[in-house]
Amino acid sequence: MSHSEEEEIPKATPTAPPPAVDLEDPAPNSSTGRTRFGVSAITQRWKREDLLNRGGLALRGLGLLFSLLAFIIMASNKHGDGENFDQYEEYRYVLAAAILATLYTGAQTLRHVHEMSTGRQMLQRRTSGLLDFFGDQVLAYLLISAGSSAIPLSNSMREVGDDIFTDSSAAAIGMELLAFVALALSALISGYKLTSQTYI
Amino acid sequence: MSHSEEEEIPKATPTAPPPAVDLEDPAPNSSTGRTRFGVSAITQRWKREDLLNRGGLALRGLGLLFSLLAFIIMASNKHGDGENFDQYEEYRYVLAAAILATLYTGAQTLRHVHEMSTGRQMLQRRTSGLLDFFGDQVLAYLLISAGSSAIPLSNSMREVGDDIFTDSSAAAIGMELLAFVALALSALISGYKLTSQTYI
Repeated sequence: MSHSEEEEIPKATPTAPPPAVDLEDPAPNSSTGRTRFGVSAITQRWKREDLLNRGGLALRGLGLLFSLLAFIIMASNKHGDGENFDQYEEYRYVLAAAILATLYTGAQTLRHVHEMSTGRQMLQRRTSGLLDFFGDQVLAYLLISAGSSAIPLSNSMREVGDDIFTDSSAAAIGMELLAFVALALSALISGYKLTSQTYI
Repeated sequence: MSHSEEEEIPKATPTAPPPAVDLEDPAPNSSTGRTRFGVSAITQRWKREDLLNRGGLALRGLGLLFSLLAFIIMASNKHGDGENFDQYEEYRYVLAAAILATLYTGAQTLRHVHEMSTGRQMLQRRTSGLLDFFGDQVLAYLLISAGSSAIPLSNSMREVGDDIFTDSSAAAIGMELLAFVALALSALISGYKLTSQTYI
């Protein structure tokens, strides 16, 4: 990197007092500008990474909240007499997707909070980035699929008439779609974080 | 990186003829290995990028094929007497998603084929990567959503009885899901291509 500067050191005239050479920075005068630029670039990058980390954590937290709500609302949606969620496979699919999303976002949120508070990485940086990216992606596909499959059923039921069963189903589907939005954005952030890693 | 090797140069005995020092490569003997390694790393990277480009192109081509098939099958699915696709909003959604996916994958395939054949980039490298990534992602969400929403309707219709209308609908949905798989994989490749850009 600084080969030419190190070449000059032996050529210094012996009359000049030998400068107290800092081995890590052999030509301080010429390289301060570069160093300052490097430092500010690094702090900028740290700030951006910190922002991305917080944003990703907040989005996963929102995903956890919404998928937990979808899970609770759908699981308690039993009102007897043909108004139980488990008589409709679309609603069972919504419940299954909500459970999986709750588990995934819960585990990821715990892991990231733990890493941010202790400062230690539980996984290698690249593994962690790939896990975030693929996991968010797959869960987002699952959530949008479950939500989309249940919307027409709720829609046709509510054309006949509204009651607490159809309202709860619609609320659970809405929560599922909000969880999808949170995870889709989180997948984009994870993708961007992957792009800004240099692996040097 | 190789400070210890360069430190040894001034210690060479003066009887040795002063080597014709290449300023950019002060220790040619010890660094040929490094140079060769750099070149092979670059060719490896070119090969990998070429493979990724071809893979992404093949996946988008498959996405074009499948979404075009979904479009044609669903659009021709009119058999009169309550068996027209446009009486069901799920099937209209499938058709709309298929049309959008056909247009997107067609345009992207044309662009990439044009870029590969002429060797010129129509967009900046980073813009192109981001466009690929976001576009594939959004279209994949749209396709899985449309497919999922239409599956329960076809399912319940086929429980009553099969005929050419339900079979065509199921075929169109299947094509839509295959197009989803192609675009989801293509989104992963686009994401990976973003990660391996260094922007130096």
